[in-house]
Amino acid sequence: MSECEDHAGEPASRAELSELSRYRLNIAYDGTDFHGWGRQPGDRTVQGVIEDALATILRRHPPAPRLIVAGRTDAGVHATGQVAHVDLTPDQERALLRRRGRSAPDRGDDDTPDRALTKRINGILGQHSDVVVIESLRAPQGFDARFSALWRRYEYRVGDALAVNDPLQRHRTARVPIELDVSQMTDAADALVGLHDFAAYCRPRERATTIRTLQDFRWSRDGDGVLVAAVKADAFCHSMVRALVGACVAVGEGKLTADDVVSLRDAGERTSSFAVMPARGLTLVEVGYPADSALAARAEQTRALRTLLPG
Amino acid sequence: MSECEDHAGEPASRAELSELSRYRLNIAYDGTDFHGWGRQPGDRTVQGVIEDALATILRRHPPAPRLIVAGRTDAGVHATGQVAHVDLTPDQERALLRRRGRSAPDRGDDDTPDRALTKRINGILGQHSDVVVIESLRAPQGFDARFSALWRRYEYRVGDALAVNDPLQRHRTARVPIELDVSQMTDAADALVGLHDFAAYCRPRERATTIRTLQDFRWSRDGDGVLVAAVKADAFCHSMVRALVGACVAVGEGKLTADDVVSLRDAGERTSSFAVMPARGLTLVEVGYPADSALAARAEQTRALRTLLPG
Repeated sequence: MSECEDHAGEPASRAELSELSRYRLNIAYDGTDFHGWGRQPGDRTVQGVIEDALATILRRHPPAPRLIVAGRTDAGVHATGQVAHVDLTPDQERALLRRRGRSAPDRGDDDTPDRALTKRINGILGQHSDVVVIESLRAPQGFDARFSALWRRYEYRVGDALAVNDPLQRHRTARVPIELDVSQMTDAADALVGLHDFAAYCRPRERATTIRTLQDFRWSRDGDGVLVAAVKADAFCHSMVRALVGACVAVGEGKLTADDVVSLRDAGERTSSFAVMPARGLTLVEVGYPADSALAARAEQTRALRTLLPG
Repeated sequence: MSECEDHAGEPASRAELSELSRYRLNIAYDGTDFHGWGRQPGDRTVQGVIEDALATILRRHPPAPRLIVAGRTDAGVHATGQVAHVDLTPDQERALLRRRGRSAPDRGDDDTPDRALTKRINGILGQHSDVVVIESLRAPQGFDARFSALWRRYEYRVGDALAVNDPLQRHRTARVPIELDVSQMTDAADALVGLHDFAAYCRPRERATTIRTLQDFRWSRDGDGVLVAAVKADAFCHSMVRALVGACVAVGEGKLTADDVVSLRDAGERTSSFAVMPARGLTLVEVGYPADSALAARAEQTRALRTLLPG
């Protein structure tokens, strides 16, 4: 969810780089037992677990592949639609297709490197893993999981006093003990949408802009009465979705009005008028990319914008 | 899910018994970290956790209450619609309403024993507990959670190769790695419905009949493509739902036909032609009771039937 730099893996020679093939991985995870996406020494992270699986599969075919991700989620945040990319050498692609003790007709779904990538990573992660590669695809020319992305969409689930309290959904649902006024929350969400400086709703981070386009922010109750926020923006700054949701929950409780959340936003200062909601309710559900022909231009544009940011 | 006797708690004097008030508890749980419903020394069980909470709340008001349940679920099996009852003495009902340091106007939802029961048990279980009391209700005359029940309904979730593999739902979803033929599975389920001896689909248990009325057995795909079986019967013998689902999965894989599962049933012997499915996919979703006026008669009838069973 934040925007720190992804480390780019080990250096490869110019000749090798020109032959690399890029794969897009669609990834889902239950964030409960992860210290977030980003690899950190000593912590179990989603990036670490998938990169370790790749390193095991390709242990005789260096360099160890590194993942670049669309949305770096925090500890405890989930994903059903995370996107990452990984670059493989021709040697690594061939290695994916070779499995000892299997003849060609037995290969079944492993007959292309993309299918083999999905199957072999998931084989190492295990059948009921808390992280799964949903699909691997040969990436179109110019694709970059992070820089080509046009928008990210998250969902946040809040069970209030009216909602069914299903313990099977507790890992992905925050709870508030009273009834929330969803129509007031909808008004507040509507009022926040647009291109604004969201500094009041971001945890500050050096060299990161807090100006974002909040493209969509809506509340509804699902079949169990659980309040679900759909939140979409070009990108989010750190803890932004959880702060926006916290402000709406304060409105639903009658502690703030829709006008208040706009005034707080325009004041541009972090405030204690509402609580940042816990990670457990948050799921990254989709990342949007332009048509294949526009991928490289979009990546160029995003990178250029970042270069212009104040230090 | 099985039908062993529930132990009835400590004896009370005749005078106390005549004054007992019965409460119905609607209960939900994630069975993953429980050794099933039934209290067992040294194991964490749903009954044990709720009874311990009650014992804590009523520690100065003996005897410790005991729960009688509609469906004794096995280790790892979940519930969204479990039903139990508990009998409380007048002294215990009064104790539920007394909380130190709270004056009458502060009581809020705790103003009746049934609401206080829900709130105080859940207060001890904690906010994100894997077991929750959804609602407590003063039981109508003649109500018995186990013996008044007319039917139990379970759901079983199987994610095949066509289904979305959502790690957030992995605790309640079994997985098979190939595509299942849901129309063949529907035919097999249809063919099994009715009043039959289901010995071939039950783990044998002494003094327990295997003759059951399978009232409903249907397959459908949910929004994620996950195959969901709805299975309803007057009662189920031990591991019966998981065996019925296992037989249908074998049909969906093309290993058995709908005719085969009927032949297996009518042969009346346990078989290795299909696998009993794992507990994780199974959830008790609803228990049906007759109208209040028929509760006592239903309980009498069920108890009489049990007395007639061969030893």
